[in-house]
Amino acid sequence: MSVDSSDLAREVEVLRITKDRCRHARVSVVREIPLTIFLNDREIITLLCTGAHVENLAIGFLKSEGMLQHLNNLQRVETDKDGQTVLVYTNEPTEMAEKLFGKRTLTSGCGKGTIFYNVLDSLQSQPLKNQVTIRVDQVRKLMSELHKRSELYRRSRGVHNCGLATTKKILLFRADIGRHNAVDMIMGECFLKEMDTSDKILITTGRITSEILIKAAKMKIPALISRSAATSLSLDLAHKLNMTVIGYVRGGSILAYTGGENLIC
Amino acid sequence: MSVDSSDLAREVEVLRITKDRCRHARVSVVREIPLTIFLNDREIITLLCTGAHVENLAIGFLKSEGMLQHLNNLQRVETDKDGQTVLVYTNEPTEMAEKLFGKRTLTSGCGKGTIFYNVLDSLQSQPLKNQVTIRVDQVRKLMSELHKRSELYRRSRGVHNCGLATTKKILLFRADIGRHNAVDMIMGECFLKEMDTSDKILITTGRITSEILIKAAKMKIPALISRSAATSLSLDLAHKLNMTVIGYVRGGSILAYTGGENLIC
Repeated sequence: MSVDSSDLAREVEVLRITKDRCRHARVSVVREIPLTIFLNDREIITLLCTGAHVENLAIGFLKSEGMLQHLNNLQRVETDKDGQTVLVYTNEPTEMAEKLFGKRTLTSGCGKGTIFYNVLDSLQSQPLKNQVTIRVDQVRKLMSELHKRSELYRRSRGVHNCGLATTKKILLFRADIGRHNAVDMIMGECFLKEMDTSDKILITTGRITSEILIKAAKMKIPALISRSAATSLSLDLAHKLNMTVIGYVRGGSILAYTGGENLIC
Repeated sequence: MSVDSSDLAREVEVLRITKDRCRHARVSVVREIPLTIFLNDREIITLLCTGAHVENLAIGFLKSEGMLQHLNNLQRVETDKDGQTVLVYTNEPTEMAEKLFGKRTLTSGCGKGTIFYNVLDSLQSQPLKNQVTIRVDQVRKLMSELHKRSELYRRSRGVHNCGLATTKKILLFRADIGRHNAVDMIMGECFLKEMDTSDKILITTGRITSEILIKAAKMKIPALISRSAATSLSLDLAHKLNMTVIGYVRGGSILAYTGGENLIC
């Protein structure tokens, strides 16, 4: 199945705050889907992606991982109707793939290993109860503080910054080449210190994708603030889990993607 | 072992091109290390990260993935001398962790599963033979074209753009929420079409980390151009593999991290 490029973003209702105005608006968010790849009927992995060119993505992933060697060995590639499963058939032994995939390296851009759908199911039955109310000037001040604290970013331009915050200040600050790693460092520290995070805010320079939202949900953190944009799947989850997602905090602008009622203009 | 924040970036020699000058300079690049996490003596994963707060990262990763449930069950955490291995011991059954980790979801920020060190070893014995020579004005024109082609980025601000190019034009363009996915789509298409990529350039909006460099090396692509910064590990590999890394192409500025002799000012 091919995906029309117009399907790769969708319009959502947001509250848009500019320097002196606060109003409802519609913005585009990029599509995010879980794409599961099977090799010779064995489930290999679920990638979170935009959903375009899924067959090339599956082939490229398998090739990149060394699970597919020669084009002659490729028998066929099938995509199911909803475009979320790609089945690849080869006449190369699959055991090699499994062996290669036994020890995985996760990238700077991630830190994942969940059984995606199980996690979704269990989280969706537990919407967060707490809410955090925050003023627009506090959002701007937190983002400004996040930037100020990252000497490493200013030096190298190579990291994402992340903080655990109250409405008034950043309590924990971490920076890493991986936006997921920065969140995991905070999760680890909170777990070790038995910190209650259910009244806190997670603030990040990275985009808000489904995994970042899921990590926050696991910590019962009710609100996320990002310098960057959110994806469609993260917003679907945020609605279901009763979470506030405030994004694109930059240059005086703020978008409340979800939970706009918790943002005081 | 704790890491001093001053160790998290290192200075490298680059060729810095501004609007009217081309000179040698020193810039900071962020540290990137492979961190391997063991749970009860079983190897779980290798994360690519900056190397700070590695114990919190390991604990947060295991907690986030559901492999660590209660603080009471945590027995001890050890980090080896070089700070690249964390050993976590619990009295929770490890089989659960393995079951949970049987089917993994990789994130938008990645598409990985290599046995990291094996890949490094095999790649390092095969430095690329081809080189691509490119003029500064061509670099700027390619980056400008990459931006122009991404209607999805302009609409949603939620994707990374990636292209396979000659010095004169972009041949293949892909955008995805994951910078690794965008590269894998290109790899898949080139593999299926049996395209020779050994004289091409990979151009991306994303940072150049080790995995992006490794994916390019596997395609024998000798040169990378990025709008963003590079990491220490990607540059170490680029030197060994004889690859050109041109980064931070924005606002008239360009940094040739490696292969400066292939950039014509």
